[in-house]
Amino acid sequence: MNVRLTIQYDGTDFAGWQTQARGERTVQGELEGALALLEGEAVTVHGAGRTDAGVHAEAQVASVTLRREWSPEKLRAAINGNIGRDVRVTGVEAAGDGFHARFSAKGKTYRYYVFNEHFISPFVVRYAHHEARELSVGRMRECGQLFLGVHDWSAFSSAQAEVEDRVRNVTRLEVGEFWSDQARGRVVEISVSADGFLRYMARSIAGTLLAVGRGESGEDEIARALATGDRALAGATAPARGLTLVEVHYDVGEWRQAGVV
Amino acid sequence: MNVRLTIQYDGTDFAGWQTQARGERTVQGELEGALALLEGEAVTVHGAGRTDAGVHAEAQVASVTLRREWSPEKLRAAINGNIGRDVRVTGVEAAGDGFHARFSAKGKTYRYYVFNEHFISPFVVRYAHHEARELSVGRMRECGQLFLGVHDWSAFSSAQAEVEDRVRNVTRLEVGEFWSDQARGRVVEISVSADGFLRYMARSIAGTLLAVGRGESGEDEIARALATGDRALAGATAPARGLTLVEVHYDVGEWRQAGVV
Repeated sequence: MNVRLTIQYDGTDFAGWQTQARGERTVQGELEGALALLEGEAVTVHGAGRTDAGVHAEAQVASVTLRREWSPEKLRAAINGNIGRDVRVTGVEAAGDGFHARFSAKGKTYRYYVFNEHFISPFVVRYAHHEARELSVGRMRECGQLFLGVHDWSAFSSAQAEVEDRVRNVTRLEVGEFWSDQARGRVVEISVSADGFLRYMARSIAGTLLAVGRGESGEDEIARALATGDRALAGATAPARGLTLVEVHYDVGEWRQAGVV
Repeated sequence: MNVRLTIQYDGTDFAGWQTQARGERTVQGELEGALALLEGEAVTVHGAGRTDAGVHAEAQVASVTLRREWSPEKLRAAINGNIGRDVRVTGVEAAGDGFHARFSAKGKTYRYYVFNEHFISPFVVRYAHHEARELSVGRMRECGQLFLGVHDWSAFSSAQAEVEDRVRNVTRLEVGEFWSDQARGRVVEISVSADGFLRYMARSIAGTLLAVGRGESGEDEIARALATGDRALAGATAPARGLTLVEVHYDVGEWRQAGVV
């Protein structure tokens, strides 16, 4: 049976999503280990987004084909009983044979959290980047609009990105702020949706907007970076710990309809 | 100079507030270690609440007398530079000589977080207790009102509590719920304020209200437990990880006025 998993994780203690040759702990490896125990043979779990080391997920999506037939509830409980408490399968659903978490995805949404106080709260230190200098959310919001639409993202991705096509469509970019009662401080959040993300693209957008918020960059730099692909015009790549994969987008019902069992 | 510290901590990796003879890691020990480095001699930090192992604090208050004169900003930065990232001094203020964080306190507020889904989110697992069975918040709210006022709390505290006087005044008890977007689930929160708490009192109240929420206890049991002091009528002590010291209450300006420098 082909299965769709929804997964949450605190990426702090993982070397990212993807199984590493070096044997480091990864989310994919954690899930595949549990499923191999349950299935009695090796299985491959395909994730929608191969998040980097330290990046978190509220609702990562993965697909996996299993030999045995499982009730979704039992499978969820069985996997969760065999993985660390920093990763949880929050949903299991039977999917059509044609569903593949990555290839069927139409887009993703990432969020970047910044804790903007003189101190970094122990309650958000695992999930938020710390910026002690005051950020102008208004300026970040204005400049963020420049990222919307179809652009070549060469200036906002890893130089080592092995892809040929660096054109992506950013469909939404919002900069918000809220007060965290628990952390006792202001949190600035940058949400960005696109039909796809190059490596480091979300963190590079966040880093550039942080430079804008501190008054160190502005419209000109962003427009020129987008036009020329010059990495020197983009801000530094913001640290992984502030980034969370929030949602993977599929066409409505697609994963059910794709040859659903 | 006498100093008032406001402190946040994630209690997960601490053996509680108070320095232990066995040399385990404590919040008090962490702060005293940093201050001893800065002062060049041993100092004693007095906390308002001696939270148990695993219990967190959003705004613990402590007082300490220092030999050197410090600007509050420099002292805060210097302490934070010498302690783990799971504890932060969020505020430093000069206090009058008469101020003592514990003896000057007029009351405290604790909050107990319960994550009420079939799974426990990695984003709240350090700060919330997990209850998979559905809780009736309405019933918890009704029964919670029975705790208000002056009672003998023998049924709701540790049998080993060395205090003579087990009478305390609970001035506020609220049961709320909210949806956590990050954790993707319902959080039930129990907030309780009193002029003082016996050991395990907050966790025992929380455990009793959890039993109420599951339909296993009710008004009768609570009323009889309060009247008789019979521990068997109270619910189990809820796990430490769900509890947070939210606020320490002082008379307005008291710590400033008490012989302020």
